[in-house]
Amino acid sequence: MVINTKDELKRFIKNAHEEQKTIGFVPTMGFLHKGHLSLVKKAKEENQLVVVSIFVNPTQFGPTEDFETYPRDIQTDTRLAMEAGADVIFNPSTEEMYVPGSSTWVEVEGDITSVLCGASRPTHFRGVTTVVNMLFNIVEPDKAYFGQKDAQQAAVLTKMVQDLHMNVEIVVCPIVREADGVALSSRNIYLNKEEREQAAVLNRSLQLVQEAYWKGEKSVEVLTELIVKNINQMPLAEIDYVNIYAYPSLKTIAKVEEKAIAAVAVKFGKTRLIDNIILEKRK
Amino acid sequence: MVINTKDELKRFIKNAHEEQKTIGFVPTMGFLHKGHLSLVKKAKEENQLVVVSIFVNPTQFGPTEDFETYPRDIQTDTRLAMEAGADVIFNPSTEEMYVPGSSTWVEVEGDITSVLCGASRPTHFRGVTTVVNMLFNIVEPDKAYFGQKDAQQAAVLTKMVQDLHMNVEIVVCPIVREADGVALSSRNIYLNKEEREQAAVLNRSLQLVQEAYWKGEKSVEVLTELIVKNINQMPLAEIDYVNIYAYPSLKTIAKVEEKAIAAVAVKFGKTRLIDNIILEKRK
Repeated sequence: MVINTKDELKRFIKNAHEEQKTIGFVPTMGFLHKGHLSLVKKAKEENQLVVVSIFVNPTQFGPTEDFETYPRDIQTDTRLAMEAGADVIFNPSTEEMYVPGSSTWVEVEGDITSVLCGASRPTHFRGVTTVVNMLFNIVEPDKAYFGQKDAQQAAVLTKMVQDLHMNVEIVVCPIVREADGVALSSRNIYLNKEEREQAAVLNRSLQLVQEAYWKGEKSVEVLTELIVKNINQMPLAEIDYVNIYAYPSLKTIAKVEEKAIAAVAVKFGKTRLIDNIILEKRK
Repeated sequence: MVINTKDELKRFIKNAHEEQKTIGFVPTMGFLHKGHLSLVKKAKEENQLVVVSIFVNPTQFGPTEDFETYPRDIQTDTRLAMEAGADVIFNPSTEEMYVPGSSTWVEVEGDITSVLCGASRPTHFRGVTTVVNMLFNIVEPDKAYFGQKDAQQAAVLTKMVQDLHMNVEIVVCPIVREADGVALSSRNIYLNKEEREQAAVLNRSLQLVQEAYWKGEKSVEVLTELIVKNINQMPLAEIDYVNIYAYPSLKTIAKVEEKAIAAVAVKFGKTRLIDNIILEKRK
């Protein structure tokens, strides 16, 4: 079932609550790939009802970014999401989410939103937290599912939920990758053949840093340099950032002692890709 | 019943939802007077359960304001609220509401928060919207009750709820006044005898402007000047602002054609009092 208005979805959710059904929620910008579908499947396993939202949120794009050209295919998305276990697809218009004159923002301040993608995309996370807050109010889910690929987004949203005492559990699911290790992303379709081949360097570099850490290297400087050197071997790769921070706080560290994240953003032509790995002691 | 932790209150609310009881909510900073109690009574009339929160919210006070000295009396408050119909008093600590490292803000931008009290108290409404958002997430009320005395607060919160699609109805209740017309306020206890007497000028001025409007005067300039002249007759009165805006948008207007608000903030000694009247066509 596809629902386009918040009033209709709220009526549906009210009924579900009265029947005491648990609700799993997967917010997406559509153009679904196996990464998204792994979230839908996980949601289906853990809840009685699954809502998938498809909304390309204008406020999380910067003025020079790809909002207009972001890939959209609602028919295919609906089919794929239903096949993976979605009960409801919520596909609102921009005006449905942002009522005329809307001027309320939900913002997480501090390191967690100012480093990594927050440094390159200063208004991005404000857009994300605002729209996800709205969606949580409409869907009232028990659990909401996000991909580890957007590790910073997951950390920011977890903090929003904690700080505002929202009644939802954020579940973070593993990155889904192609055979050569490239993380699935709706933006991968922008890549030409050469760019796509070279993009495999991101995951390779992250695997190398994992190995180096497991072999005893703890210096953030040394580990970061290892990634940079590796990525720079690819002639089409242009680094936006390569950083290692404590996770999920994203505080600056000099040595990897506790849980940390190595995160990269790299442009191939006009396409900016992100990837990351959580550095933990070997189990 | 007094509850101090959000976890305990959330359990109570969860039960109430399962029993399909409607919840009315009255958020306060305590030191309850008849104005607050009128909200509790209204909530009791319209809901099966009434929650009253008592929390002096630090983030809505400016650095030079009266957070430390704001009057507190939780024993008397509890008794009065229960007598007026409250089922639960929620009285959390600051750390309970603002978890350590909390850095998430909910902010309504635009004229609605930048004029009137927003001009004199630039971080005030950000504190109000953030804490009320938190409280709504904890209490999950069907309806929440606010006094018309804080007309701008009511307008800002109504906008927050609309913009973020929150599932609560904001109910705004009439100002409760003393015999001489002074609006009830927890801060009235700061006034000495002379200041208290002269404070009656606020309501008198607002009544005069109402009469002038009903007699045909529509110019915001003329109506504003009428209030200013009147208040300035009191030697202890020091005007912070006197303004007339469209209500509830708080947009600037030159003439009162549609619903408008005449709002004043005046200091008597160190005590800042606010009052207002909604200008509407005579019924």
